[in-house]
Amino acid sequence: MSNAKHLTLPAGFVAGAVHCGIKTTAAEDLAILAGERDCSAAVLTTRNQVVGAPVLWIRRILPRGYGRVRGVVVNSGCSNVCTGPGGLRDAEAMAALTARALGTTKEKVLVASTGIIGHRLPMAKIRAGIAAAAGRLGRDNDAAALRGIMTTDTRAKSAVAVARVGGRDVTVAGVAKGAGMIAPSLATMISLLTTDAAVGPPLLHKALRRAAAGTFNAVTIDSDTSTSDTLVVLASGAAGNRPVREASRDFAALLAALTEVCASLARQIVADGEGATKLVEVAVTGARGDGEAEAAAKSVANSPLFKCAVHGGDPNWGRIAAALGKSAARIVPQRLTIRIGGVTIFRGGTGRKFDLRRVEAHLAGREVRVDCDLGLGKGRFTALTCDLSREYVTINADYHT
Amino acid sequence: MSNAKHLTLPAGFVAGAVHCGIKTTAAEDLAILAGERDCSAAVLTTRNQVVGAPVLWIRRILPRGYGRVRGVVVNSGCSNVCTGPGGLRDAEAMAALTARALGTTKEKVLVASTGIIGHRLPMAKIRAGIAAAAGRLGRDNDAAALRGIMTTDTRAKSAVAVARVGGRDVTVAGVAKGAGMIAPSLATMISLLTTDAAVGPPLLHKALRRAAAGTFNAVTIDSDTSTSDTLVVLASGAAGNRPVREASRDFAALLAALTEVCASLARQIVADGEGATKLVEVAVTGARGDGEAEAAAKSVANSPLFKCAVHGGDPNWGRIAAALGKSAARIVPQRLTIRIGGVTIFRGGTGRKFDLRRVEAHLAGREVRVDCDLGLGKGRFTALTCDLSREYVTINADYHT
Repeated sequence: MSNAKHLTLPAGFVAGAVHCGIKTTAAEDLAILAGERDCSAAVLTTRNQVVGAPVLWIRRILPRGYGRVRGVVVNSGCSNVCTGPGGLRDAEAMAALTARALGTTKEKVLVASTGIIGHRLPMAKIRAGIAAAAGRLGRDNDAAALRGIMTTDTRAKSAVAVARVGGRDVTVAGVAKGAGMIAPSLATMISLLTTDAAVGPPLLHKALRRAAAGTFNAVTIDSDTSTSDTLVVLASGAAGNRPVREASRDFAALLAALTEVCASLARQIVADGEGATKLVEVAVTGARGDGEAEAAAKSVANSPLFKCAVHGGDPNWGRIAAALGKSAARIVPQRLTIRIGGVTIFRGGTGRKFDLRRVEAHLAGREVRVDCDLGLGKGRFTALTCDLSREYVTINADYHT
Repeated sequence: MSNAKHLTLPAGFVAGAVHCGIKTTAAEDLAILAGERDCSAAVLTTRNQVVGAPVLWIRRILPRGYGRVRGVVVNSGCSNVCTGPGGLRDAEAMAALTARALGTTKEKVLVASTGIIGHRLPMAKIRAGIAAAAGRLGRDNDAAALRGIMTTDTRAKSAVAVARVGGRDVTVAGVAKGAGMIAPSLATMISLLTTDAAVGPPLLHKALRRAAAGTFNAVTIDSDTSTSDTLVVLASGAAGNRPVREASRDFAALLAALTEVCASLARQIVADGEGATKLVEVAVTGARGDGEAEAAAKSVANSPLFKCAVHGGDPNWGRIAAALGKSAARIVPQRLTIRIGGVTIFRGGTGRKFDLRRVEAHLAGREVRVDCDLGLGKGRFTALTCDLSREYVTINADYHT
């Protein structure tokens, strides 16, 4: 990662980051992203019932998931989850300290924290860190901000897309952290998106929900839904486009750009899943509805036996069929077709003769594609996951509270 | 394992087993268990929608899950799953060949197969094997029969219990195979039980369902529900007790013995899960109902992050709280209490100070106990699982189709 711009590529944003000492390494662990003025904001947060204090803070200031905000403060190294009323006061204090530095009120500042669960934040370090990061705000400190939100990630994740909206070229950019405790049915991990498009908060929220549905919400590293997952988009309006209206061509264009960025970040998260050596797409078609397609795709994507088989390069369709069969989706084996890398290996209730070398060559690559047609309807969903390796166990058995 | 009796300990049963060549090792791979006369029989089979031909055969001859049968033929090394109409004919042929050897009709013979999915049975070997196993039927060939149903099991699993029923001492015995593709919400793996009690098929079925609920159905090795799971109990009536009536003290006594055997086998299966180094009990109390308690307990028991933490001996209550929070059960963090090895580590929405050495010593043992009181009602369920180790990945990545 160079010092290329990411979140500050769209006009109207600044960012800054520092190492303030939450992490024991020298890496950045606190970052601020801010609009030059108040921005339209939309947020999706975890569906886990145990949620971190930062998520509680966000829900307090944006009860409907959207509104006007000035910026976001993010720390890594400590997630501020299960820290009681004191933890919520800490999140509020982070917002207040950042607000003071930005010249706004705490109700205009989102907070996100990632890292270990159950520890209070080192507030003296946070206080100094926020002051220092605010002092470095600019359009060129963005790469450091990106590093500041990483935990067990081995690679920084960013994406950008452009769209023609309301007579102007608008830019959508995004960064994300991922790696572990990443799972279905929610806005996953921490991801920050910016755009210079002019768009109202409710419509931005609608676009974000749609963009997340087939991208972040299709991701499952290990079926473990985090307590802190937060997806934020800020829209500065600096592009000067005509404001986007609902159901317009402009809305479709903005949604497409937002979806492109979310899809790219989702794939980067999966490819960098803890211990992952392969990105695996499980595409289900022919389900009785999209909901059943999602249940079927995620049942395969979460199957430890399937994920181990992919890790070992084994075209084990029996495990795929079994994982489909245990899901909440209706499955009729005689109607089912399973393909790996485009090669049909199961059809009509039984395995088919297939070119083993071709399928094994596909499985040996970095990206694996499994297609399951249930033959029962028009429902479809594609889940993204990774393989299950010894390294995943090592990372998560050796990580200590 | 000596030549001790297992399934033939209750009066009225004979067993025999051979190596007929399905497995490449010299181990027994085909076994017959038979009553000296027709027996009361009850069966639970997998809830997976993709089911093996033997399960289809059992459902054809016992559509209500109970009836009168003479015996069971079991093979390991090939599960006869996803093998089309030919596979079902093979299962039927196994029943017919066994029936001929036992002097009965094929509708009186249950079939169970375990092993790789998607391959046709080597019927010439099976044919010779059934003839040879039938020639060895007796009360002393039982240990070989037990070995004959094993696959990746590293230990034979058996249990026995006695009860006073209808004026007589009756015996309940059982054997099981387990190891991988073992998961919630079904009668798990292959397990055969015998008893010399006199009890009608419908009542035996009722007792079996109740006994399985908190035992086999509480087990999850890897969340992967098999296509072949079959739990069979045969009752010979040779004990000569007064036939058991519903809602009687006799029924309760028989149910207790059956539950004791099922519970022991379930624990043995988990302790011998693929790659397992620890047996883990996750007990949930205080849920709004038993169904929510089960959802919560299994969410923890299936969490890869939790299972890795146990493997590493880490008292990571954050992962337990997160797994509870993502479940379908209602969770209020402020009402939740989490204990490991009896030590309270989380209460009132946050972690508590605790004796780390005491908890780590508990986690270092072979059996780990986690208690989660949700503080919301009277629902309770205890799930059984094992830790997730590198060895599990090795076994399942290196196993080839």
